[in-house]
Amino acid sequence: MTSPDAVTVGFQGEPGAFSEEAALALLGDARPEGFRNFDALVEAVDAGRVTYGLLPVENSIYGQIARSYDLLWAHPALRIVDETIHHVVQALIGVAGATLDGIREVRSHPVALEQCRRLLDAHPRWNAVVVEDTAGAVREIAQRGDPAIAAIGPASAAARYGAVVLRDNVQDDEDNYTRFFLISRGAPPRRNLGRACVAIGLLRADKPGTLRDALSAFADEAINLRSIVSRPSRFGPFTYRFYCEVEGVDRVKLDRALSRIAGEAKILGIY
Amino acid sequence: MTSPDAVTVGFQGEPGAFSEEAALALLGDARPEGFRNFDALVEAVDAGRVTYGLLPVENSIYGQIARSYDLLWAHPALRIVDETIHHVVQALIGVAGATLDGIREVRSHPVALEQCRRLLDAHPRWNAVVVEDTAGAVREIAQRGDPAIAAIGPASAAARYGAVVLRDNVQDDEDNYTRFFLISRGAPPRRNLGRACVAIGLLRADKPGTLRDALSAFADEAINLRSIVSRPSRFGPFTYRFYCEVEGVDRVKLDRALSRIAGEAKILGIY
Repeated sequence: MTSPDAVTVGFQGEPGAFSEEAALALLGDARPEGFRNFDALVEAVDAGRVTYGLLPVENSIYGQIARSYDLLWAHPALRIVDETIHHVVQALIGVAGATLDGIREVRSHPVALEQCRRLLDAHPRWNAVVVEDTAGAVREIAQRGDPAIAAIGPASAAARYGAVVLRDNVQDDEDNYTRFFLISRGAPPRRNLGRACVAIGLLRADKPGTLRDALSAFADEAINLRSIVSRPSRFGPFTYRFYCEVEGVDRVKLDRALSRIAGEAKILGIY
Repeated sequence: MTSPDAVTVGFQGEPGAFSEEAALALLGDARPEGFRNFDALVEAVDAGRVTYGLLPVENSIYGQIARSYDLLWAHPALRIVDETIHHVVQALIGVAGATLDGIREVRSHPVALEQCRRLLDAHPRWNAVVVEDTAGAVREIAQRGDPAIAAIGPASAAARYGAVVLRDNVQDDEDNYTRFFLISRGAPPRRNLGRACVAIGLLRADKPGTLRDALSAFADEAINLRSIVSRPSRFGPFTYRFYCEVEGVDRVKLDRALSRIAGEAKILGIY
């Protein structure tokens, strides 16, 4: 674990990525560090190489990211200690002197290009080129300095790399939000929101009533359910895992509810 | 709707994509047609321009694809008429005369490259280049004919474009399965598996017991739950939607269960 005077927060992506924006909005004084993928990020938090990690768990367009919950299940020393919702806003970014008419190529991650389909369709002369990372696309076009080559990505990356926002808010769907867990190995919950995330493994969860009975344990303790997602064990027929996010809990209520569930229950965080 | 003697099945991706493999495995005699994205695919099925569409709903690594359920919710004339599970196997593909030692560049979709991290890490001289589509990568390297340039993608794409599988099964995780719904506007269920997918909209679903009570309606009819995923309405606090897949149903049992649910329930398919 790094010392308290050097709080670090890991995120997935390059400097200037949306995840870094979200990390700095939540933890303005922490030093951000980018990781190649979710696995590398979670392993760095588990090894204490960063104080915190910011792990996306849900997007308003695409839904829950079961893989993130799976990674927490697989790293039992980690705990969720906070959460945050980040508004994803795509910008069209060029270099000084660039104009919309002069653009010939637009570079971005395939998902970001897809989110800006209307803008791209309105400019058929722009050649869309896929790259690995939105922030990396901005860095690259800034370095090349060609006004005919633009990128789609976070406005914060334009500021970081000395590029120019040619048009902000260019995604088709205004309602694009990503929700993140802040995870840590050893740091305490930051705000005590009365929320928790629990993994429940049920044998024969497909049988009528098994999940209903598990949820009754929450309902009887007046615990609210915020989200639920099921995970078959590799599409096997009999063992299921459910990830439940609940609110209105404290440790005592949660322990009491979990003791009534006829299966394996694991708390991934109370925060 | 196309005439019965020209059954067509839409999929997302280019010819040779994994989705096309899955479509042909399920409907060997249908004519496959690729679409740019999920929205375009679903709209083509809704407009009757293709008989069927194959829509991915879950992947064993990444989890459920809530966006696919949302598209079915938004297109009420569509019905799920069958489902299939496809094993995703990545191959390293080159042109005639290529050798592993001679490769300098490997092109693929970023997710496919990420799934083959071990192979790429073992060959640090290979430059990974991201492109929009795995099958498109195979088509492109076949056209260029440079033995130094390889692709990662479906072996079926190698066969289609006259390229060569240099090494099969190169993904890190053997257990990579994608589950698809077959959807249609007007075609009947193909096999009557006794399964159904239901969307349930609950007001104040966050209140203790609301989802438990809805699931009781299934349990009391001895209906098995196969999967569940929650969708907040744009992260608003009060209205939730749940997508439930159930089995052991017929129309009568399902209608009886849904009539007991205190919320909006919509059948996305009985198949």
